[in-house]
Amino acid sequence: MMKIDILTLFPEMFAPLEHSIVGKAQEKGLLEITYHNFRENAEKSRHVDDEPYGGGQGMLLRAQPIFDAYDQIEKTSPRVILLDPAGKRFDQVYAEELAQEDHLIFICGHYEGYDERIKTLVTDEISLGDYVLTGGELAAMTMVDATVRLIPEVIGKEASHTDDSFSSGLLEYPQYTRPYDFRGMLVPDVLMSGHHENIRKWRLYESLKKTYERRPDLLEQYELSDEEGKMLEEIRQQSGQ
Amino acid sequence: MMKIDILTLFPEMFAPLEHSIVGKAQEKGLLEITYHNFRENAEKSRHVDDEPYGGGQGMLLRAQPIFDAYDQIEKTSPRVILLDPAGKRFDQVYAEELAQEDHLIFICGHYEGYDERIKTLVTDEISLGDYVLTGGELAAMTMVDATVRLIPEVIGKEASHTDDSFSSGLLEYPQYTRPYDFRGMLVPDVLMSGHHENIRKWRLYESLKKTYERRPDLLEQYELSDEEGKMLEEIRQQSGQ
Repeated sequence: MMKIDILTLFPEMFAPLEHSIVGKAQEKGLLEITYHNFRENAEKSRHVDDEPYGGGQGMLLRAQPIFDAYDQIEKTSPRVILLDPAGKRFDQVYAEELAQEDHLIFICGHYEGYDERIKTLVTDEISLGDYVLTGGELAAMTMVDATVRLIPEVIGKEASHTDDSFSSGLLEYPQYTRPYDFRGMLVPDVLMSGHHENIRKWRLYESLKKTYERRPDLLEQYELSDEEGKMLEEIRQQSGQ
Repeated sequence: MMKIDILTLFPEMFAPLEHSIVGKAQEKGLLEITYHNFRENAEKSRHVDDEPYGGGQGMLLRAQPIFDAYDQIEKTSPRVILLDPAGKRFDQVYAEELAQEDHLIFICGHYEGYDERIKTLVTDEISLGDYVLTGGELAAMTMVDATVRLIPEVIGKEASHTDDSFSSGLLEYPQYTRPYDFRGMLVPDVLMSGHHENIRKWRLYESLKKTYERRPDLLEQYELSDEEGKMLEEIRQQSGQ
């Protein structure tokens, strides 16, 4: 069972996780999440934040409430994750790595910053992407969601994630469902043909094409099969390059 | 005032936004968010999702409930954003662009995919990053948070975001707050000196150093001043390159 501890000033913000796959994982006993409101650890007569030394705008999270909350967590060798826009960028490979761990601790800052000494507790500084959020809570929730769905047995066989974008290394092909004619827009004939091999080829071609057009960087890391190599050659020619 | 409409099967998941800056923006009358549960728009006797044409695992969101929910929204020229891991990557520049808009519509899919024809409604396919989430809800919340905090007057002067990582183009320098000595870890002397010019230089140097070490890609897009150029030269030499 995976154990996740989340240090946050806003535990109530994490309610949406209960609606997602994360809630189901907890019900199945595959996951235990504990929230620690480190405001309760602030020393008497002191706040959780204070002004920066050397001047400047905003208030910084103080080290002490975080350290004290951290000390109270039972642990052996956890991954301790600080959400920070300057950290290593979170991606699917990172999610797969975290999904292997027994114990994750997330420290959610808030947007005005935190005392640098908090980083001495931390094994991973992770960024959700190149943007600034009000706090680390949404980032932590997002990482927990992306990670927990990769724990074996969390998503059932019928909803396998092996077809996901990024899991295969290519972007996903277009998909269609009923009706065949929706407001005059038709489903491509090949998908109606029942010809499995043609469908497989069409999907592979469309995946390669989308990846080539939108994310050529993904193709650089992708090992092409002979079939894929030929398709990509055709896609390149068609796009006139 | 900015108007945001969110098409989702899980409107209750968005509760955390009320705790963040987004709730404050709504109280101030700077923002109006409306949630549309498109499950209510599903044709009688049909579900919101159905099997993919051509076979395959998982269920796809059908076009009809999304189109009908979209048709009911009063609008002139909205930005219509589809959350999709294969979309353009969301970043701070994108957030700044969205913060200029009058009307945003977010369409939240779920992880198994959606009918391709939904994209005909869409102006922007956006990805939060290279990872797969259970649904678009956390991605939409994150984008709304990053965007709304950039609307003028949402964050007060005292908590300006001009010092943010990414807003300046450099990563943020280390910050410290009381106490001076925490568990034997001391605040750097320069920050205690009261010498404003030295503090400014130290912070600029640390910002450049962190950016150089962690995100050299950001420096490529950054226009260095003479002072910054000299500092970076020194940083390069010190790192032995």
